[in-house]
Order: sequence, then structure tokens, then C-alpha cells
Amino acid sequence: MKLIVQKFGGSSVASAQKMLNVAQRISSIRKRGTNIVVVVSAPGNMTDELITKAYEIADSPDDRELDVLLATGEQQAIALLSIALKSLGCEAISFTGPQVGIVTNGNHTKARIVRVGAKKIKSVLNQGKVVIVAGFQGVNKKQEITTLGRGGSDLTAVALAAALKADICEFYKDVDGVFTANPAIVKNAKKLSVISYDEMLEMASAGAQVLNARSVEFAKNYGIRMHVRPTFNNSEGTIVMAETTAMEKTVISGVTYNKDEAKITVRAVPDRPGIAALLFSKLGQADINVDMIIQNIGAEGKSDISFTLERENLKKGLLVVKKTARQLKAKEVLADENIAKVSVIGVGMRSHSGVAAKMFMALSKMKINIQMISTSEIKISVVVDRKDVDKAVNAIHQEFKLGRVTT
Amino acid sequence: MKLIVQKFGGSSVASAQKMLNVAQRISSIRKRGTNIVVVVSAPGNMTDELITKAYEIADSPDDRELDVLLATGEQQAIALLSIALKSLGCEAISFTGPQVGIVTNGNHTKARIVRVGAKKIKSVLNQGKVVIVAGFQGVNKKQEITTLGRGGSDLTAVALAAALKADICEFYKDVDGVFTANPAIVKNAKKLSVISYDEMLEMASAGAQVLNARSVEFAKNYGIRMHVRPTFNNSEGTIVMAETTAMEKTVISGVTYNKDEAKITVRAVPDRPGIAALLFSKLGQADINVDMIIQNIGAEGKSDISFTLERENLKKGLLVVKKTARQLKAKEVLADENIAKVSVIGVGMRSHSGVAAKMFMALSKMKINIQMISTSEIKISVVVDRKDVDKAVNAIHQEFKLGRVTT
Repeated sequence: MKLIVQKFGGSSVASAQKMLNVAQRISSIRKRGTNIVVVVSAPGNMTDELITKAYEIADSPDDRELDVLLATGEQQAIALLSIALKSLGCEAISFTGPQVGIVTNGNHTKARIVRVGAKKIKSVLNQGKVVIVAGFQGVNKKQEITTLGRGGSDLTAVALAAALKADICEFYKDVDGVFTANPAIVKNAKKLSVISYDEMLEMASAGAQVLNARSVEFAKNYGIRMHVRPTFNNSEGTIVMAETTAMEKTVISGVTYNKDEAKITVRAVPDRPGIAALLFSKLGQADINVDMIIQNIGAEGKSDISFTLERENLKKGLLVVKKTARQLKAKEVLADENIAKVSVIGVGMRSHSGVAAKMFMALSKMKINIQMISTSEIKISVVVDRKDVDKAVNAIHQEFKLGRVTT
Repeated sequence: MKLIVQKFGGSSVASAQKMLNVAQRISSIRKRGTNIVVVVSAPGNMTDELITKAYEIADSPDDRELDVLLATGEQQAIALLSIALKSLGCEAISFTGPQVGIVTNGNHTKARIVRVGAKKIKSVLNQGKVVIVAGFQGVNKKQEITTLGRGGSDLTAVALAAALKADICEFYKDVDGVFTANPAIVKNAKKLSVISYDEMLEMASAGAQVLNARSVEFAKNYGIRMHVRPTFNNSEGTIVMAETTAMEKTVISGVTYNKDEAKITVRAVPDRPGIAALLFSKLGQADINVDMIIQNIGAEGKSDISFTLERENLKKGLLVVKKTARQLKAKEVLADENIAKVSVIGVGMRSHSGVAAKMFMALSKMKINIQMISTSEIKISVVVDRKDVDKAVNAIHQEFKLGRVTT
């Protein structure tokens, strides 16, 4: 019998009515004779509300206890969804992460899955029940509750799909699928019917929030097909799968942007080995993730180092950088909050030359200044002024004729 | 080292500030060198709110899933309290019922504790940590989450105190202790410094809501001293313990009332064996609990049967009774919603005669009509018109000079 893992996000289950809608949908698929494992996130904004409660009590709440607290969100969701399904006459049973055997390492609030038990789920599926599993959570070897961090529920779904050898892993979202660009910004953005894991990964890290990068990576490693589709209608969305030669014919799959970054520049550092190593290890110790990094050797053997980081870390980052800059005898440290990153992504880039040139051309035509450039095998990112983002994304989308993509 | 189990109710932890107050209190006792196990209920009205959510989704939510849902309330409380304690520099660790090994039978939403694991808690106490355990919840043999029903957190506390051989089990309430009568009704009601398990049991079943009857029974069976005390000041409350001869010197410990009952009377039933058996087994099958029962043989070999039940069950109860009454060829069925039960309780009753007479005298002086009477070894209950309750309780309190009790 066919087996699907379906993942529903928090907005899909934010009210009693939405919960019943989701249950109706699951029930009707089940009736057609498909085994279903459902993974569900905490309803609505519950996770954020719980975090707020914890911070009302303590400035830096204990991580172990935060996990105990946050895990209740998904636990409520599975219970309510199971209640909804049973009220529709569809046999269902809920399991928390610990109950079902999602074993993680001990890294509280950002644990990694090390093992997923499939036995219990399989036996319940064989009884004809829909299995509902709490996303985002697991249990470590000490039987402590752990959570998987941002996007953890997507990860739970993919891990279960892998352990159960599911035919497909569906992600129900409040969007129709993955688009060539954000439809809110680009009017003629097109929904992609298919995209490769690598492109999806780059898109996720370049700002597209439709799927979490960790879950795409996991799916890629285990060859799990992902289907990103809308919650509130029955249309097909976007399949994320292994690269095929057909995909390479399309040069670019999409244009993404990220407005949540800021830039720090360390000016005129005396150039000697180990400067970057020192700077970025200090940032790493302060638990600050850095995205793009650029280093140029300038005049008089001095270098400029620029990098981007999440804007919410800017203040903390600046403290670390200024302290290190003094050690390094740098001339000055500059910060820019008003930047954004725009990226083009596509596996076709590998076999088509001139993609970068075409992108820069599009920006130049619109008189948009490029502050930083960074490239990977299937992605080119530039940093521009934040006010230029919409213009930049549209210009690039137009230049690559993405509105005409037939998928 | 001394070991205390402390139980805090939902109102004690209903906000961040209250949570911190509770943590402060625990921390200061811990600093004086006492091992502490804390049991905590769901914050504020959370349990009721979750039940409402479930009923928004289904008319009769599945019991197994209700338990999964409701258990999240206490889980949030333990996490937040542990966060609060750690923020005060007091080492603490939280455990859910399943984590700590509170094993119950499989009776969802009203499970009974069958075993309590002490090993894990003892080892953590030995590390000098405060142990925080979620009240109200456990796990059955199938590793499913169960809850213990009304007053379940009190029960968790007593069960842990028994398993750990604690010196005392403290219950922090929003009252100062157990009183000779409700201070809201009787101005000179006195706080009792000590009361026997049996008296506390009768008080609980007679309407005093300060402690849950199941937990008192459990404490009695295992000889656990209970200390009912106020959350928001440091004064001593009431100790609930085994009966001593000193207690018998006081005839009456208190007067209680219950305004949440209603009365049903089946009039003129042809008197033959098995009538009461049939009537009350039908009510039992409908899951309706009956409190007081009175049967009198009247004229022409016909009997009247009266009984009280929770008022919220009156409608359901009347349906059952009317159907059965037709079978029994009874003359009529009467219902009275406007009743209340008033009880006097005291182990001293056993050795002092005339207690009932004195109680009836007090009521007669106030011209309060007695509708039903029921007695047990240490309790006398009467049913009166609900509008007379305050007057009745005050008259009895006065008659037995309870305002002058020195405790």
C-alpha cells in the first residue's frame, strides 16, 4: 500500500475550523486507501508565545527546560488533530517525538536526529490508523525532551519518510509551491512544477522560506521526494527531487532575496596570515552565523574584510568585531543595516556560461549598485541597498525570462 | 537530610511574577539545607481552556488524546518553574510524569497510580538539585500519556511523598489552611492547626474544596503528613495527620456545605425488594454519582425514595429516573434544584453523644426546615433550602462554639 508522510505547518492548524479542514483532507485521502503519517507543528504562534513566557521569567532561560516547554506546542497539535480525525470517523493515534522514538543528540534547542524508530508506526499503520507525530521534538539518550530548532518539523517529516521508506513526503504550506520569485514582488512569477534538491537548498539559504534547508539536505541524502503544496486547495505544488538532465535546460530556476541581513566591514587591517581565522572564530564563539564573506587586499598591504550576518545579530556582532579589530590594529569598523541579498539559482548555470554577466547587466541597467558578490556552483548572490530589492528582483526575473518558464 | 514534597496549584503559578515568587520561596528553603521535590499544576485556567479547545473540535473528544492534550499544561508549568529557579541560581530539573515513572492503569482521563519510580528522583536529589515533577499525569504500560482526573496533582504529590518517604507533603493553596467553616460565610471561623485524615476526608466529600479526597485517602493509607498552607505568606497552615486521642476532646472540627447538589424524589413506589437496587444501578450505568440516599416506607405499602446528586447531572438523572419510575409504577418523580447540604464533622462525635440533637436544635432555632438527614461515624449531613445555607452554617458554628476553638 502507498505510504505518504504529510507535514502541516502551524498556520494550517491555527483554529478549530482549520484543524477540521486538515482532518477532512487527511481523511479523504485515507479513504482512497493510502497509509498516512502526519507530522504537525505547534498551532499558530504558540512557539513564539511560549518563548516570550520563558523570557518574562528569565533573561537566559535554561535550554533543557526551554525544550520541555516548547515541545508542548506540537503535543497539543497532535492531540487536537487526532481528536478531529476521530470525530470524522477516521481512526487515528497521536505520538510525541519521545513516544515514537525520534532519538536525537543532547544538543538542547537545536538537537540533531540520530535515529528514528519505525517499528511502532508500522504496526499502527497496519491496523489501518492514521499516525500523527509531533514535529520538532525528540528524546536524547538520557530520556530528556529535545527540540530540533527552526524548521524542525519539516525535518521530522523527512526523517520519518526516510525511516518508513515513504513514497513521498508532502509539505502543506500557505503558498501554492516554489516560485521563480516571490509573487508578492514579481507579478509574473511562475510556480515551478519541479526543482532539484540543490536548487531548493540554495533557495532556502538565499532567503526563500518555503522549506527549511536542513530538511532538504536530509531529503537529498535519503532520496526522499518532497512535494510542496497548498493547504487550502487541492492543486499540485512543486516536487523537490534529484537532478535530472532535463532540469539543466533551464538556466535559472528562480530569484530570491533576503532582507534580514546586515553588513560589517573591517577596514585597513594589516595583512598577515590568520586575520580572517581570528575574526571569524571569535564570531563563531559568540554563536554568530556569518553568511557572505569577502576579503580584498588593498593599498599598503592592508586588507578590507566585509561580511554579512543576520541583522538581529548586528549589535552583538559589532561588539565582537570591534574588540578583535583593535587587536588586529584595523583602521575602522563600519556597519550597514540597510542592505539586502539578491540571488539567482539554477543547476543550469553549470552548463551555461555568462549567467553572472547577465545578472550584473540587469542590475546595471536599473542603476543598482552591487556592494558584494559571492558565487557557488549553482548560485550567484549580490548585496545591494535594501531599498533596491524589489527593482533588482524584477529586473533579474525579466532578464532571464522566468515569467515565461514552462514547467 | 530532610525531604519535603511541595505541591503548588495552578493559581500559584498563573503569571511570570507568581512563578518567580514560588521559585524564591523554594530556593530559600533549599538554601537552608532541605531536599525538595516540587509538584506543580497547570498554570491558571489552562486545563479548562484546553478542554474548551477540544470540544470546539469534537462533541466527545477521544479520551486518550484528551490526556495527550491536557498533560501539556503541567509540562509548561514544570519547565517555567525550573527556568525560574535556575535564574535565581538554584539548581533544578523538571520531569514529566512519564519521565519520572509515574505508572498508572490505562483508564484515560481518570487513571489510577499503580507505581511511582523513586530511583531517578533520589539520584538527582543527591546532586543537590530541586526536582520539579508535573502533577496530574502519568504513563500506562503501553507508554501512553494518562491523566489522573480532578485533584490529580494533589495525588501526584502524595504518591511521590510515599515513594520517597518524605518527611512531609506541603500543599500551597490560596487559603490559610483548613477552617472550622468557610470564612467567607462565618466571620469568626477559626483556622484548625491540626485535623485527622478521616475528618479531612469527610470535609472534602462534604464540600470543602481545600484538598482532594483521593489524595487524603492515599496519604492516610501511607501515613503521609499533609500540611495545607498559604502560598503568599509564610504562616503555618493546617496539618492533616493520623487521629490522636487529643483530637477527640474537640467534638466538632468544622461545618461544611455544598451548594452544588440537587434532589430527586420518587414518590409512592409499590414497596418490594430490589427497587432501590434497580434505580441506583440504572443511575450508575449512566455514570451519575449519587450522594445522600433516603428511603421511607409510607402508607399502603408504598415507599418514597429521595437522593441527592450533582446539580449538573440533574437533567440526565431525571431522564433515567423517570424511565425507571414508570417501570416501577411509581406515582411521580419530583426534582428540587434549590437545595444545599450542610454537614458537621468531627472524630469527637464518636465519644460525645447528642451531637445530632444539638445540630438540629441550632437549625430549629433559626426556623430552618430539614429535608433529609444522613449520618456517618464522624459526620452528620442535612439537606436544607439553598437560601438558608449561610444562616444554617453560622447557627451550627455558633451552637458548637467553634469560633472559640483553641488549636
